[in-house]
Amino acid sequence: MTSAHDGKPLGVGLIGTGYMGKCHALAWNNVASVFGDIEKPSLVALAEINDDLAKQKAREFGFASHTANWRDLLSNPDINVISITTPNAFHPEMAIAALQAGKHVWCEKPMAPRLEQAEAMLAAAQASGRVAAMGYNYIQNPLIRQIKALLDQGAIGAVNHVRVEMDEDFMANPAQPFYWKSEASSGYGALDDFAVHPLSLLFTLFGHVTAVTCDMAKPYEHRPLKEGGQRAVENHDIANVLMRLEGNISALLAANRSAWGRKGRIALQIYGSKGSILYDQERMNEFQLYQAEGPAETAGFRTILAGPQHAPYGRFIPAPGHGLGFNDLKVIECRELLSAVQGQSAHIIGFEDGLRIERSIHAMARSFQDRCWVTP
Amino acid sequence: MTSAHDGKPLGVGLIGTGYMGKCHALAWNNVASVFGDIEKPSLVALAEINDDLAKQKAREFGFASHTANWRDLLSNPDINVISITTPNAFHPEMAIAALQAGKHVWCEKPMAPRLEQAEAMLAAAQASGRVAAMGYNYIQNPLIRQIKALLDQGAIGAVNHVRVEMDEDFMANPAQPFYWKSEASSGYGALDDFAVHPLSLLFTLFGHVTAVTCDMAKPYEHRPLKEGGQRAVENHDIANVLMRLEGNISALLAANRSAWGRKGRIALQIYGSKGSILYDQERMNEFQLYQAEGPAETAGFRTILAGPQHAPYGRFIPAPGHGLGFNDLKVIECRELLSAVQGQSAHIIGFEDGLRIERSIHAMARSFQDRCWVTP
Amino acid sequence: MTSAHDGKPLGVGLIGTGYMGKCHALAWNNVASVFGDIEKPSLVALAEINDDLAKQKAREFGFASHTANWRDLLSNPDINVISITTPNAFHPEMAIAALQAGKHVWCEKPMAPRLEQAEAMLAAAQASGRVAAMGYNYIQNPLIRQIKALLDQGAIGAVNHVRVEMDEDFMANPAQPFYWKSEASSGYGALDDFAVHPLSLLFTLFGHVTAVTCDMAKPYEHRPLKEGGQRAVENHDIANVLMRLEGNISALLAANRSAWGRKGRIALQIYGSKGSILYDQERMNEFQLYQAEGPAETAGFRTILAGPQHAPYGRFIPAPGHGLGFNDLKVIECRELLSAVQGQSAHIIGFEDGLRIERSIHAMARSFQDRCWVTP
Amino acid sequence: MTSAHDGKPLGVGLIGTGYMGKCHALAWNNVASVFGDIEKPSLVALAEINDDLAKQKAREFGFASHTANWRDLLSNPDINVISITTPNAFHPEMAIAALQAGKHVWCEKPMAPRLEQAEAMLAAAQASGRVAAMGYNYIQNPLIRQIKALLDQGAIGAVNHVRVEMDEDFMANPAQPFYWKSEASSGYGALDDFAVHPLSLLFTLFGHVTAVTCDMAKPYEHRPLKEGGQRAVENHDIANVLMRLEGNISALLAANRSAWGRKGRIALQIYGSKGSILYDQERMNEFQLYQAEGPAETAGFRTILAGPQHAPYGRFIPAPGHGLGFNDLKVIECRELLSAVQGQSAHIIGFEDGLRIERSIHAMARSFQDRCWVTP
Repeated sequence: MTSAHDGKPLGVGLIGTGYMGKCHALAWNNVASVFGDIEKPSLVALAEINDDLAKQKAREFGFASHTANWRDLLSNPDINVISITTPNAFHPEMAIAALQAGKHVWCEKPMAPRLEQAEAMLAAAQASGRVAAMGYNYIQNPLIRQIKALLDQGAIGAVNHVRVEMDEDFMANPAQPFYWKSEASSGYGALDDFAVHPLSLLFTLFGHVTAVTCDMAKPYEHRPLKEGGQRAVENHDIANVLMRLEGNISALLAANRSAWGRKGRIALQIYGSKGSILYDQERMNEFQLYQAEGPAETAGFRTILAGPQHAPYGRFIPAPGHGLGFNDLKVIECRELLSAVQGQSAHIIGFEDGLRIERSIHAMARSFQDRCWVTP
Repeated sequence: MTSAHDGKPLGVGLIGTGYMGKCHALAWNNVASVFGDIEKPSLVALAEINDDLAKQKAREFGFASHTANWRDLLSNPDINVISITTPNAFHPEMAIAALQAGKHVWCEKPMAPRLEQAEAMLAAAQASGRVAAMGYNYIQNPLIRQIKALLDQGAIGAVNHVRVEMDEDFMANPAQPFYWKSEASSGYGALDDFAVHPLSLLFTLFGHVTAVTCDMAKPYEHRPLKEGGQRAVENHDIANVLMRLEGNISALLAANRSAWGRKGRIALQIYGSKGSILYDQERMNEFQLYQAEGPAETAGFRTILAGPQHAPYGRFIPAPGHGLGFNDLKVIECRELLSAVQGQSAHIIGFEDGLRIERSIHAMARSFQDRCWVTP
Repeated sequence: MTSAHDGKPLGVGLIGTGYMGKCHALAWNNVASVFGDIEKPSLVALAEINDDLAKQKAREFGFASHTANWRDLLSNPDINVISITTPNAFHPEMAIAALQAGKHVWCEKPMAPRLEQAEAMLAAAQASGRVAAMGYNYIQNPLIRQIKALLDQGAIGAVNHVRVEMDEDFMANPAQPFYWKSEASSGYGALDDFAVHPLSLLFTLFGHVTAVTCDMAKPYEHRPLKEGGQRAVENHDIANVLMRLEGNISALLAANRSAWGRKGRIALQIYGSKGSILYDQERMNEFQLYQAEGPAETAGFRTILAGPQHAPYGRFIPAPGHGLGFNDLKVIECRELLSAVQGQSAHIIGFEDGLRIERSIHAMARSFQDRCWVTP
Repeated sequence: MTSAHDGKPLGVGLIGTGYMGKCHALAWNNVASVFGDIEKPSLVALAEINDDLAKQKAREFGFASHTANWRDLLSNPDINVISITTPNAFHPEMAIAALQAGKHVWCEKPMAPRLEQAEAMLAAAQASGRVAAMGYNYIQNPLIRQIKALLDQGAIGAVNHVRVEMDEDFMANPAQPFYWKSEASSGYGALDDFAVHPLSLLFTLFGHVTAVTCDMAKPYEHRPLKEGGQRAVENHDIANVLMRLEGNISALLAANRSAWGRKGRIALQIYGSKGSILYDQERMNEFQLYQAEGPAETAGFRTILAGPQHAPYGRFIPAPGHGLGFNDLKVIECRELLSAVQGQSAHIIGFEDGLRIERSIHAMARSFQDRCWVTP
């Protein structure tokens, strides 16, 4: 037997080991095995505020070392890229420090609670010359890439109308006690909590938002406190937006985090001069295409199942219709990040476009206050 | 053998023998056979502007006589109720004259091109003391009644958010020559051409609209003329509206008559504090219900097929899951009209509520001009 | 005003006023209005064993007279065609007598409880020279005709495999008391109670069955008696058949009348050398088509909504996607019957093919006894 | 920073680096990160017949060493368990040798081309006292476990009828050149090529098959040869089976590897005395449940999306409705294997049950020859 592994692979640091931290860890573990066209990265160290937890997660996630102080990663010369998966409020400080330390940054969305912070992050990225990418994983679905390709090829002609809905039900229960997601300090509510996801899709497919008017609503004015009594809800679980996209495309965004029965819905409807496209994240391995051609007797929406013809699905499974999962999208995103690090063009949202997405969110909130249309 | 039919049945007159005229004729022919609880109406006479056509349609539709002059119906003492199925522009004159002649009126939607005309129609109805009902057939679906009953019973708790979409593709082809539907004189476009249908559903389920802001769009700025050249499109095939309903429910209406692949879509999403309801007119024999109760392992949207448990489905078919059709809804509407004529309470939209629906349409158009919220 | 109706229309007699009697009555009332290409038939008389009920139904259904003795219809010279909608056991006597009296016969399926009776019915039909048609309404769905046309055009190449399932749940409840449907004298159970429907579809699309082997099962060995105690179930609510069709196509039939949640399911899967077709009667206004052509990235099953392009849908509604109902299929069947009466070719199952369908049912039952393949 | 990884983890060897080899490698890489309750296994060595490929795959898959001779793995004391992912024909030799060398074995399905070989494998497993598990990954779907739990709880009462279909289209194109899958030496065709998968589900949910009768068909009698001319197809792409399961449950299996448009369909229908369950592998993150209880107005099939309430979904993603993928099932299977290795009860199919599955396949083939029912 011969020993494998020579040469110096890319060194990875991870900050945060919660939901998204684990998702990043899995991606770093899998990206070379799945793609087979890139050196396996070296999982150098992870940082988690609690030392015992850090130790345990390092073992679980296959990181060589761990620390309770995230700044240790910045000074580690073996680390080239840092995954930031902590809560929003920590993103600005961590991302800016990492970039200033010369590390590439892969930061979970959204960038920051306040617009000025996000602007500072972009400035740091531009000053550093390093890759600064956002974790907008839904755009990585091979079917979203396929939809993008179809649009580019004119498969449905010129797009004139788009609708996107994002619905989940984690805030649907009025008996659920008040927690930080209902505090004004956590943001506008549905709008920035998850409407950024559909906006990442709209940006990927059509470009940026050019005008908005928004309505927001509170399904429940108050929520019970665990300790008894109740507290007024300070932000909005429902947000609806009329928009115009680049090219003056009329669009509509509806986001509801109190939508009973919806679990991970991001439903797209795209209407063009020659056809239509439908997609729903709850059935992420299929999309629907209507093309206005051929005999009327057999015209209809085609349900297309993901398969190896939709790159990079085939890197995961050679057989069609067998299904990718949510975590697989992060592996694809990781591969794109690695392309960016190698100086190649990459299908990933950088800090510049990430900032514009967040700017449009703030414009929506402003339009809700003003009761009129606003330009981001 | 004994001869049937004695006593004096209700006499019916019909104006117009096109699409909706035929639909009314089928309803008048079937209502007694289907329901079995009412005397078969007498189909006295129909009016159609062309005499030959009038004669032919009378034979086809089983009317005893015909005329090329609709005013003949007003003076016919055997006629008690008149179906008006002509183009919008004729509704005001015909409906007002019929009511003044002491006839009950069953008028296709919408009431009239201009608001003042609709107001005059309501005034005539109120002065006459006769039944004046609108042909909003979609509210007659037994499943819509079931949804209404579920809402009333609190099956999904307090409703806090509603979305309704209406999409067809009869204006989707940019190569289709300019015709009257694109003229400003025919109305706003998608908004009054068919957004009245979803509004009739919203009214039935939740009451009237209290505030609106609307965006409209033209998928195609120009359309070709049959004779060569092209002509500017004067109204909007796409309309999107943010709304508040009675009780300050946040709502959203999207209407698109250029939506390739959509044929008869009216999709409702209703979100409440205890569950959700979904419905799509393209699959009019089913709806979906999510109730936040029972074990999480088996929580999900239930797809409920129409059956005899959803009155009056059983009047048509005793077996569940066998399916009603579009024309059956008009038979139900006809039965409701007959209840109204008999002075009983009826599930039908009269001129008063019809006028409020049209008022809200005009408010939407105003808000599009003003770029701000408007109160109808 | 001029009076309509001259010339002598076709005279109709109806025996039976239950579920299917009403369905026939609606068809006779509507056929001329819907199609507009045929004289409105004259509804001469109906027969129902109870005289009061006969009178009431004549009024409801618009028949000019009524009788408690069905033989009165045979001697009535104004009657040309007789609808037979009574229970199976009465079909042979009534159909044979009607044919011998020179009437055309439209008889509900299946022909008769015993094969010899069905053979006698065919003999009577052949001797009479009159039209003798069966009420297999599902083949009248415009989409089934469309599927037939696609198969004939080779849209999915040479068919090599077919599956058909028919499932309802009216026998699913084990607590439901024993009634005649579970008696051996009523037939084999699922096999002849409703498997004849899928067989009518298979015959229409592919021709007759050439070999069978069948398994049958009883979900419940006993059922409670209303009066207390229980009684052994004498036939089978579940039947599964492996088959070969003309051209040696491999086929599979599954029928279950105790399938909880299924209400009117007749699901077809047709596989060919160039594509596939799917259809489900519970969504009777759509079917699915897969064609192995075009780019792999966009290959998928197309969901096609019924519309005027699928004749004779357009006779009912000019707009696509608005939906026909179960009762509409009977109107189409009625129109086909009238074509046959006029000596034209018609899309309807006559007694000869009806007999072959029933022969194959009996062969299936035999194969279940013999535990081996049988040729009908 | 502290270094992680002490103690001696389980050592893994992998034979074969194709489709399933990669799938196993991903599972071994991920199992500890995903589950967090088990020591990360040590990826000791992989074997691949070509040395360069072996080297490359070791790097990609993260194995410490590689070899071109699979027997090297047997003599490596650091290896405790061996994944066998080579073609069927190699399974018997490799599995038996590995077991005899004292290794646990995780072998891809099916066991072996011939029944005697599979019997020898079972004998070797029993003699060794080691874990000998099959790679039937579909049973690992958390929703299949949930379905199993529902059946055990009596959620749909006593099951009386089951249907399962497995369809793909990789043999659907008649123009596809003849290759080894159409040779008699490769097996019966659809029956053993993939009907073993649905049988693994039936076994998991209901136990073993007790009686069968089978029909098989060739959609294409010949296939073209790459070099010109054609060759007779020697086995059957279509197989249909009537069956009885333990408890005399009537069942039906249909398998078709030439079913255009089907990509990864494994469709289950389970009917019981109190409800029904539906599942389709092409939408592996949902299943449907009908329970005969509650008001008739709202009875229907519930579509249940996978979520953390369906263990071990939550090990992958904390949010519901976000979707597992095909490769995730192998990670779950790997975790079950590790439980078995630790002497705990495990949800995995061992060689004994694997052999019974293959015995039933051979019985089906025999019944096709004999044209009668056969007992496995």
